[in-house]
Formats: sequence, structure tokens, C-alpha cells
Amino acid sequence: MPYVNIKVTREGVTAEQKERLIRGATDLLVDVLGKNPKTVFVVIDEVDTDNWGVAGKSVTQIRKQGR
Amino acid sequence: MPYVNIKVTREGVTAEQKERLIRGATDLLVDVLGKNPKTVFVVIDEVDTDNWGVAGKSVTQIRKQGR
Amino acid sequence: MPYVNIKVTREGVTAEQKERLIRGATDLLVDVLGKNPKTVFVVIDEVDTDNWGVAGKSVTQIRKQGR
Amino acid sequence: MPYVNIKVTREGVTAEQKERLIRGATDLLVDVLGKNPKTVFVVIDEVDTDNWGVAGKSVTQIRKQGR
Amino acid sequence: MPYVNIKVTREGVTAEQKERLIRGATDLLVDVLGKNPKTVFVVIDEVDTDNWGVAGKSVTQIRKQGR
Amino acid sequence: MPYVNIKVTREGVTAEQKERLIRGATDLLVDVLGKNPKTVFVVIDEVDTDNWGVAGKSVTQIRKQGR
Repeated sequence: MPYVNIKVTREGVTAEQKERLIRGATDLLVDVLGKNPKTVFVVIDEVDTDNWGVAGKSVTQIRKQGR
Repeated sequence: MPYVNIKVTREGVTAEQKERLIRGATDLLVDVLGKNPKTVFVVIDEVDTDNWGVAGKSVTQIRKQGR
Repeated sequence: MPYVNIKVTREGVTAEQKERLIRGATDLLVDVLGKNPKTVFVVIDEVDTDNWGVAGKSVTQIRKQGR
Repeated sequence: MPYVNIKVTREGVTAEQKERLIRGATDLLVDVLGKNPKTVFVVIDEVDTDNWGVAGKSVTQIRKQGR
Repeated sequence: MPYVNIKVTREGVTAEQKERLIRGATDLLVDVLGKNPKTVFVVIDEVDTDNWGVAGKSVTQIRKQGR
Repeated sequence: MPYVNIKVTREGVTAEQKERLIRGATDLLVDVLGKNPKTVFVVIDEVDTDNWGVAGKSVTQIRKQGR
């Protein structure tokens, strides 16, 4: 009955990439812990770059300065 | 001081249903653990069906195949 | 496929009370949103009173001052 | 490698306020625990007032009744 | 800067299995989204079987009835 | 009604440091967003170094290799 939560910045993740994240995370729990894939839940949270901070700055700021 | 987080797929949950979830979760903590209702917080997260996976597939895919 | 997370302070919640929280939260999702109970996950986190703060103080401090 | 998640109601938090929350939370982990600021992640979740409940009511209801 | 949280029941997950979960989740974010592995955080939560519910019962109960 | 969750590795955080984290996080929400401190909740999660991964390795491994 595992539950996996993946948080990434909201920067154009496609539906196809989300399917791959869901399948990959499910396979991981099956392969490593022998879990039944039917019982694996995956929730992907996309977080605005204004709302995600690293090293004291928002990712919005970091992206600007990286240009 | 309980905190309850309810995650459901974003599939048309109404404001009235949210009120019922909030009231129900609060009552549960009061009834079972004798908590003061004023200190019960409830946060409802609605998750896009592309972003919720079960059994290795997104709910979007599962809904399509169920048709 | 709902997921419910209940966080309470670790102050002697019994196994029987946990069963009631799990059943109650599941029933709530069934009653309000018509969810299939088999797909409802509930996770209870018990948090040490040193690690839970309200109004700028740990619950440990609040309990001491309340005596 | 700390991770800080701040949940507030979605009521007009500005980008500048988010920067201050990110910087303040990062500084806190540096000051209190001596963490390397580069390794501090902060995620801010803004929650609709319909989806946040206190004392058995949504914040939407509480705001209405407070008028 | 992704963050992955994996919740499983506390039923004897070994340190070696945890390493594989961490490596696998990190690789997944690198492969699917091209993330820098240095910025991927993974947190594994092990939840007591009394504290995890499915279908209205704790996993402790489900394991007993499955015998 | 903000909720702040702070996750750090379980490496000897003292009760006094936890009080400072709680007070600091509460003050931050008061200062930046004008929140009522009585309504600010803080939950600190201490995560075993086996259960926290960065860059594809557990913190346990990273600490060993850093020696």
C-alpha cells in the first residue's frame, strides 16, 4: 500500500512525462519491496516557481539570475 | 491540535461537499479523541487526474479505459 | 482513490482509537463523495509534543503551563 | 538538507512576500541548526479558502460570518 | 529541485532497500525530467501498520485476517 | 491559519532548538503575512539518515563518505 508524492516545479511537465513518473515510481516499489502494483498510489504536485525556494531564493529568481 | 489533509482527484467536488468533509473530519477527531473542535485544521487538496496514479497509470488513463 | 492524513500529538492514542479514525475517515469519503471504500488510504502520524508547536510554543510547553 | 513546507490560505500573497517567507525559513534553519543554506528547500502551498477548514467550517464561511 | 516522499508500512525495510529506493527515485527524475541528481531529495516514511488504513481497516487488522 | 512543516535529519536536535524553530517559524508568518500567531501550527519531522536521500544516496552514506 505505498504512497509516493513527487513534487516538481511547474515548468511544462507533459501528460506523457507524468505517465512515465507514475509508472516508474510504481515499478520501483514493486521491484525493491515486492509491493502489489495495484496498491501503489502516486501523486504529482507541480509547484509554481514563485513558491519553491532553494538557498533562500525562489526558483523564479534563480532562473532569472541564471540567464 | 489535529491536522487533517484530504487528497482527492479534482473531479467536480462542490463547495457544499467540501463543507461536509471539513465538518465530518472535525467531528471525527472530537468524537474519537476528545479534541477541541476549534483546534482542528482540515486542508483539502484536489489533484488533477493526470497527476494521480494508481497501479502504474494516471487516473486520466484509467477513466478512459473504463468507458 | 482518496488519501487522508491525520496528524495528532503522540499522547496515548490507542489501537482501538486508530481503528475508529481509519473507519470514520473512510466512511466520510464514501458518504460525501461516493468513493469506493477499498480505494481509501488513511495514514495517521503521531507527533511528539516537543515537535508540535502552536502560537509559538511547543505543546510540551503549553501542557506544562496549563497545569 | 532541510525541507520546509508552508501552507497558507490563497488570499493575495505577493511574490515579494513569498521571497521573504523563503529567505526567512532558510535563515531560521541556518541560525538554529547550522544548516548549509544551499541545501534548504522551501515549498509554499496556497490553499483556496473553500478547501481550508478550522473549527468545522471552511475559511470561506468564517470570512463571511466575520463581516 | 524535485522532492520525493515515499510512504510504506514499517515491515522490515532494510537499509539496502532504502538505498535502492533513493537511487531509483532519483534516477527516475533524472531520466524523465532531466533533473540534476544533486538536487533530488527523497524522504522515506515508514508507518506503523496500526497507523495505516485501507478500506476502513488498519493494515494490522488486514494482516491478521489474511492469515 | 498557517501550517508549517519542517523536515530535518534526526541528528540530535535538542528540545531547545525545536522551541526556537517553532518560535521562529511562527514569527515569520506574523511578520510577513500579518497572521495571528495563535493560529500558526508548526510540525517538526525528524527523519532517520537512512531514510533521507540526496543525489541518489542516503545521508547515512554521505556522512560516511565525508569522513
